[in-house]
Amino acid sequence: MNKSKSITTNQIDKPQSNCGIVGIYGHPQASVMAYYMLHSLQHRGQEAAGITTFFKDNNKWKYASHRKDGLVLNVFEDQKIFTEKLIGNMAIGHNRYAIIGNSTDANIQPFNMCYGNGNISLSHNGCLYNPKSLQKELESKGAIFTSTSDSELFLHLIAHSKKKTQVEQILEALTIAKGAYSLAILTEEGLVAARDPNGIRPLSLGKLVFKDENNKEQIAYVVASETCAFDMIGAKEIRSIKHNELIVIDDETLNTGEVKSYNILPKTPIAHHCIFEYIYFARPDSRVFGHNVDKARRKIGKNLAAEHPAHPTKDGKKVTVISIPDSGNTSAIGYARTNHELNEIDTVFEIGLIRSHYVGRTFIQPGQDNREFKVKSKFNTVKGVIEDRNIVIVDDSIVRGTTSKSLIKLIRNANPAKLQMRIASPPVVSPCYYGMDFPTKEELIANHFNTEEEIGKELGLDGLHYLSLNKLLESVPRDEGIDYCTACFTDSY
Amino acid sequence: MNKSKSITTNQIDKPQSNCGIVGIYGHPQASVMAYYMLHSLQHRGQEAAGITTFFKDNNKWKYASHRKDGLVLNVFEDQKIFTEKLIGNMAIGHNRYAIIGNSTDANIQPFNMCYGNGNISLSHNGCLYNPKSLQKELESKGAIFTSTSDSELFLHLIAHSKKKTQVEQILEALTIAKGAYSLAILTEEGLVAARDPNGIRPLSLGKLVFKDENNKEQIAYVVASETCAFDMIGAKEIRSIKHNELIVIDDETLNTGEVKSYNILPKTPIAHHCIFEYIYFARPDSRVFGHNVDKARRKIGKNLAAEHPAHPTKDGKKVTVISIPDSGNTSAIGYARTNHELNEIDTVFEIGLIRSHYVGRTFIQPGQDNREFKVKSKFNTVKGVIEDRNIVIVDDSIVRGTTSKSLIKLIRNANPAKLQMRIASPPVVSPCYYGMDFPTKEELIANHFNTEEEIGKELGLDGLHYLSLNKLLESVPRDEGIDYCTACFTDSY
Amino acid sequence: MNKSKSITTNQIDKPQSNCGIVGIYGHPQASVMAYYMLHSLQHRGQEAAGITTFFKDNNKWKYASHRKDGLVLNVFEDQKIFTEKLIGNMAIGHNRYAIIGNSTDANIQPFNMCYGNGNISLSHNGCLYNPKSLQKELESKGAIFTSTSDSELFLHLIAHSKKKTQVEQILEALTIAKGAYSLAILTEEGLVAARDPNGIRPLSLGKLVFKDENNKEQIAYVVASETCAFDMIGAKEIRSIKHNELIVIDDETLNTGEVKSYNILPKTPIAHHCIFEYIYFARPDSRVFGHNVDKARRKIGKNLAAEHPAHPTKDGKKVTVISIPDSGNTSAIGYARTNHELNEIDTVFEIGLIRSHYVGRTFIQPGQDNREFKVKSKFNTVKGVIEDRNIVIVDDSIVRGTTSKSLIKLIRNANPAKLQMRIASPPVVSPCYYGMDFPTKEELIANHFNTEEEIGKELGLDGLHYLSLNKLLESVPRDEGIDYCTACFTDSY
Amino acid sequence: MNKSKSITTNQIDKPQSNCGIVGIYGHPQASVMAYYMLHSLQHRGQEAAGITTFFKDNNKWKYASHRKDGLVLNVFEDQKIFTEKLIGNMAIGHNRYAIIGNSTDANIQPFNMCYGNGNISLSHNGCLYNPKSLQKELESKGAIFTSTSDSELFLHLIAHSKKKTQVEQILEALTIAKGAYSLAILTEEGLVAARDPNGIRPLSLGKLVFKDENNKEQIAYVVASETCAFDMIGAKEIRSIKHNELIVIDDETLNTGEVKSYNILPKTPIAHHCIFEYIYFARPDSRVFGHNVDKARRKIGKNLAAEHPAHPTKDGKKVTVISIPDSGNTSAIGYARTNHELNEIDTVFEIGLIRSHYVGRTFIQPGQDNREFKVKSKFNTVKGVIEDRNIVIVDDSIVRGTTSKSLIKLIRNANPAKLQMRIASPPVVSPCYYGMDFPTKEELIANHFNTEEEIGKELGLDGLHYLSLNKLLESVPRDEGIDYCTACFTDSY
Repeated sequence: MNKSKSITTNQIDKPQSNCGIVGIYGHPQASVMAYYMLHSLQHRGQEAAGITTFFKDNNKWKYASHRKDGLVLNVFEDQKIFTEKLIGNMAIGHNRYAIIGNSTDANIQPFNMCYGNGNISLSHNGCLYNPKSLQKELESKGAIFTSTSDSELFLHLIAHSKKKTQVEQILEALTIAKGAYSLAILTEEGLVAARDPNGIRPLSLGKLVFKDENNKEQIAYVVASETCAFDMIGAKEIRSIKHNELIVIDDETLNTGEVKSYNILPKTPIAHHCIFEYIYFARPDSRVFGHNVDKARRKIGKNLAAEHPAHPTKDGKKVTVISIPDSGNTSAIGYARTNHELNEIDTVFEIGLIRSHYVGRTFIQPGQDNREFKVKSKFNTVKGVIEDRNIVIVDDSIVRGTTSKSLIKLIRNANPAKLQMRIASPPVVSPCYYGMDFPTKEELIANHFNTEEEIGKELGLDGLHYLSLNKLLESVPRDEGIDYCTACFTDSY
Repeated sequence: MNKSKSITTNQIDKPQSNCGIVGIYGHPQASVMAYYMLHSLQHRGQEAAGITTFFKDNNKWKYASHRKDGLVLNVFEDQKIFTEKLIGNMAIGHNRYAIIGNSTDANIQPFNMCYGNGNISLSHNGCLYNPKSLQKELESKGAIFTSTSDSELFLHLIAHSKKKTQVEQILEALTIAKGAYSLAILTEEGLVAARDPNGIRPLSLGKLVFKDENNKEQIAYVVASETCAFDMIGAKEIRSIKHNELIVIDDETLNTGEVKSYNILPKTPIAHHCIFEYIYFARPDSRVFGHNVDKARRKIGKNLAAEHPAHPTKDGKKVTVISIPDSGNTSAIGYARTNHELNEIDTVFEIGLIRSHYVGRTFIQPGQDNREFKVKSKFNTVKGVIEDRNIVIVDDSIVRGTTSKSLIKLIRNANPAKLQMRIASPPVVSPCYYGMDFPTKEELIANHFNTEEEIGKELGLDGLHYLSLNKLLESVPRDEGIDYCTACFTDSY
Repeated sequence: MNKSKSITTNQIDKPQSNCGIVGIYGHPQASVMAYYMLHSLQHRGQEAAGITTFFKDNNKWKYASHRKDGLVLNVFEDQKIFTEKLIGNMAIGHNRYAIIGNSTDANIQPFNMCYGNGNISLSHNGCLYNPKSLQKELESKGAIFTSTSDSELFLHLIAHSKKKTQVEQILEALTIAKGAYSLAILTEEGLVAARDPNGIRPLSLGKLVFKDENNKEQIAYVVASETCAFDMIGAKEIRSIKHNELIVIDDETLNTGEVKSYNILPKTPIAHHCIFEYIYFARPDSRVFGHNVDKARRKIGKNLAAEHPAHPTKDGKKVTVISIPDSGNTSAIGYARTNHELNEIDTVFEIGLIRSHYVGRTFIQPGQDNREFKVKSKFNTVKGVIEDRNIVIVDDSIVRGTTSKSLIKLIRNANPAKLQMRIASPPVVSPCYYGMDFPTKEELIANHFNTEEEIGKELGLDGLHYLSLNKLLESVPRDEGIDYCTACFTDSY
Repeated sequence: MNKSKSITTNQIDKPQSNCGIVGIYGHPQASVMAYYMLHSLQHRGQEAAGITTFFKDNNKWKYASHRKDGLVLNVFEDQKIFTEKLIGNMAIGHNRYAIIGNSTDANIQPFNMCYGNGNISLSHNGCLYNPKSLQKELESKGAIFTSTSDSELFLHLIAHSKKKTQVEQILEALTIAKGAYSLAILTEEGLVAARDPNGIRPLSLGKLVFKDENNKEQIAYVVASETCAFDMIGAKEIRSIKHNELIVIDDETLNTGEVKSYNILPKTPIAHHCIFEYIYFARPDSRVFGHNVDKARRKIGKNLAAEHPAHPTKDGKKVTVISIPDSGNTSAIGYARTNHELNEIDTVFEIGLIRSHYVGRTFIQPGQDNREFKVKSKFNTVKGVIEDRNIVIVDDSIVRGTTSKSLIKLIRNANPAKLQMRIASPPVVSPCYYGMDFPTKEELIANHFNTEEEIGKELGLDGLHYLSLNKLLESVPRDEGIDYCTACFTDSY
């Protein structure tokens, strides 16, 4: 354990990273459904997980909560947690992504509170712009902070609101908290879900038809960061929650099928969806922002081939495209096909890297090159595919470049005749201020070199090309009133 | 797991139980010392344990905290917790006692907060009288409650104080929080310790002489619920912290040897020490409230014999005194000796019950008498001591009477000629409102019968006598300005 | 836990399943190298793992062994196992595959013994034909059996040999033990490795160049079921160990580079390599039997397309090939390309199923369809790829058909226009008697239907074709003296 | 972990230590009963535990076994082990005591085997004299040894016997295996129990009356090292199994109430019971060898006072006797009373040391005095009892003297006026060759000094006396044909 890692920093000074959030209303086993949904969003956060339910006890609202370090399957491995603790027909859940320097049990969500107006529990994906000044202001009013997460600010803002209902209090709080947030909130008035006015993080609404104990069909409503969570429990997506929208699901919704919808700001601005969800973060079998991730990713692959074709070697070796599994798979297939068909260059897609399914903490010998070893314990090359071939690797992005370098070294060991790379996004030049866990500018490899050629050389490649920002924007879905946040590629926010 | 047990009750509606608290200032391995002290206070709380340290990082105060369910040895079994996480030269710790219906991770102390005036961490033993009204008032000011423990109220009271320094804020908070509290608090100004104006729970001050890395003698200051915690690390008791006293230990203290002392209320009332600390709760090798526990317990035994002698049987069998180990041991020896010497009745003390050292969760067969089995897995009789003998059992107290009944049945199986019991305290007729975990009035066996004889019959005894309240009060130390809380015997608070 | 599963059957009555074995000689950290190799062979057995080392203590040979249930990373998670326990410069290891009804700690390999001629430790992949008669014969000589694994027979055969050296004893034992075996054996004379006369299971020999503490290059020799184990530690394959061959690696080998080689039977029969290693079992990045697995698998895909092309739908929807990840990937790519190029049918390969990386034991609700749920928690469909498309699924094989059925149901939910399947091997009609864990004949779906069409209908498909045995045999490498065991497809052994 | 500790020594070169064994026949929950009995014998071995049951499956005998490192409660914490695995109406169990240098999973008993005549499972307490020569002889016949425990020899001897029945084979084996053994053996013919011809280790026979599912009274038969195991399950002792006796309990026994009894050697020699069972090993609430342990221990205390009285100090301080809990308790009470009554010296018994109930592995700081710390974490002094008093400590024995030294130092810190010690046994001068885990002669403190005075001085005492061998022998029960093994005090075997 690294010393700085285990220390609790007691000021909110790091953006919260990407996470997965879910919510469900109207199901007798709400916590079990939340658990399944969280499990399918595991890729959005592996550090910790939690579920909170609300239920009535003697006509008074109570909550039950279970939160712990680890993967969803481990956090909830005792099935009694569901039957004896997490009772109630509404639940929210959260998968937490690890951030160096910010790891404390007190940060595991959902955050639960009892305050003047009852109980509230909150799951947040995103991060706020102005956490320090907000915290300072709230502290001046007597607020105490027990976590180091900016998500705790929402609770205090709600508790300090003078509005009457919990939903009104939340709406008021959201006009104060500037930044990126997708939220699932349990209140005594129902399940609340919201996306910030810029709509940076995704959140979808769905419904689940199930049979109750009398074998009568019932409907429960669900929200989740990605629709693969709905697939897991057999729910259907209704729509994406809109940016600047707050919805409320309550017993009325169950009766009428109508979800209450509110605007957070009176005037809805242009949305700025995080384009990285399409590039890397979301699962390809998900829909986010109302669109198929896979479709965008294939189009990215095609545009990458159109913009940066790969050619046979001088001695006529045809192009062999391999991907870095699994994030590069779809773009790689799109790239290979377009290079073959559109560019009319003899091209095949092959599986050149095998990814191990048994990755975990491995014992590392003292003196060993740690990163290289980790890459080796995760990937191995298919020699017959690579040896003496004209290889083009397709990957989603390059951030620090350190893992890429180790991977390229590994592939080099399989003796390709030529080794190039194509990246399904532009160079990353700026950290993300809206919730993705990017390193500082200094750590980004693109800030250390002037040209693709130089970066390629540094990484040990015979050629490297990034997709241009224009072509990237051409590849992703365009709805009216929707733009993309591309600040990590442009450094302009 | 019982359903009601695992549910988080989100209103503060149960008195907090007895716990153990420790603090240390001025030791380079403060967290390790706190750990040793908590280990020796394990008898005061077995549900959970935690330690928080303060340290400076880049000239800013930070805290590190580790809190978990389980025994001290288990909670801190990874030694890296001390070397990599719990750094700093001041630390506080807490052992938590299990309370039905109140078990949630969010309740494990120390409670840490960051607020307008910096960081504070708090360990509390005791409970407040007016938690609900205090909570309501604080909530009306925007306070949010994340635990169900009344101890959280201290944090909010401190954060809402307009005073300048942290120590002043704590002092102000303590004038508002009525009830029983012994506190160890880490502040950015030093280690604070306090006992409520009635001085219900104990807290002692000590010092530890140790050698630093240059082999130079240094002094650290320590506080703990009982002095057995000092013995564990080789510290010496200086004195008991006084009721209505708040002390501050800081770098100045290290230099001058002077501990700053403040009155909480301007006028110090008569103290009301919890008499149960002498009867049962504290370890006999400890000093609490400035006195040896063992000495009081022996005197109790003597007074018990003087008040309720045991006699030979009609056929002349001499008296054999046995104790319920370990809490009855000292009184039993005192009883036997006095009965022999003062009462001039032939009496011997014998070990009639063996207590197993390997107690834990045992697998219980369905249909088995659970309580009886638990008693059996914890105790066994020494047949040769009991069979055909005139047995007098000495125990510290009877609360519900259920465990006593099972134990008496077990002893009956060893065929004593006669089987009586003497109790080293009066009948318990009222729950404790100051922090001891007593059941409701309805559950107390003494409230179901009119006479000692009836209770004795119910328990399966040939005779039962309790020590009278007067004799109990005669047995415990009397200092000026010190009285005892005996509400559980009198029902008058 | 299933009752039959947890019972120790104390007769050897089930074939031992496929497993992974490794060995190393001449490395100061032999056990660490064995651990890395076992980790990369994790796919061959997930139930249990073990490593044994030999070392000299006071000039006497001793062994150290660590064996436990679980994945390699879990079994060896305490790094002290390597530094304090598994010392010595030679080691063998074993990954165990779970077999219902045969699960007992006593079966975890390596098996270690001390006998008249010293110490021996043995790792076995395969199974014997005649375990019961062999056991009976050995028992009549006083042998006692402490496991229920046929691998224990080797130990007794060795111990009952009257030959002088350990290697001679092993050679004699192997002429008696008929069946399938690849073995890695630690002896006091060196590391022994062998493959049975029919060469059913694979085993490769490699060498590892490393620098010793004086930075001088040294060579260690390694053996492993598949070469991906060599890749993991940077070792190079020398060659496959031949069928009917026993090799010895000792200090002389380290000096001269010469590996001693012996024939087990005087006359080497035709080999019968297990063809399923190429179809499914081995990792595609491995070499087994001296050949690339990936190459065979691609050729299988091509032959499958040549034999069973897929056509556009009547309304002209082109063919979309998807694979069941990961075992069907390579064949699916080969199939798609050949269908496009050779068959001149418009065909694309797409990723239609996403496999979760976070699979583990999931909490299943009572009443839930277990198998369906497991499939769902492991796979999800990419709707955009499947919806309204002309889908051809490629998978390696169908055994029981139960998982296939659930998967096909899952894919059907994504609404393909047409849904066919191609299987990269013939119908499985017979259990394996040489070590693969196949169910009984009754459980094999192919034994319940007469035609591909009927099976396809049962599975919910619009079309199903298996690769013919001839075409399969055309696809795999052909060396002189090498044939294949295809008994599971032909029922003739 | 110490290097030598974790290495598997693969020659039987250390005597097996003291352990606890149990057996039961005729109970539908035999394994649960065995578990409870093992739990109450936990003091006889804390390293590992195991239970084996026999049951019929399809008319064939099978066994099920569960064995693991750790305390009984931990080894069997999953209750499914009993209901799904350890089925059958006969069971045996074993508690293993840790021996340095001999710790390997393969040594955890019961040892189970399948051999020519069926299945056998064996639990052994004791050790053999001639393990090496026996092993050599058996190895020459092809036997293989998989553990490093001499107990494995029994299995091989049984398997090599040419006798017809399992009981006959066991009887024959026992005439060959010389040494100390109490055995509980499961056979297909019934439960076998035996004590060696010298009867060194204890073993008792009991019966348990219970109600079956039809509420009809049934009888099961039990054996255990000590009768406290019977108390735990409500069984009654019938008698001690005799030395040189082998008994068989089978279905006939259930019907007739008759236990079959055989002599091992034709002529029964004089028994030599291990006298240390009375001094230290057995629980005081147990009967061993047919007698109450407690009674012997009290008599020892009395004789100790008669032989070595304690006197007031010159300034008239009366004698205060304290014991080292818990093993010294009974003798200390006997000592105090006799010193007071018989010697007519003013003497009181007090509790001067408190033993912690929460002992486990404690984190030790580097540089700390390990032993001293361990003593401190286990014991604390009652200052009021010791300070300025004339203290006599009573302990059962001194072996190495190292722990005594630390304890005496601890007591010295409480400032007694005078500090003497009385030991309830003679000086230990020789290791035990019959199963007790004693150190070598060089490590025994008594071999380094000539007089009690010198030893006392070394330990930091103002006086030390041991009980003489004669007086010890006077204190223990004397039956006809029974003598005691006192070799550890006399060095003559």
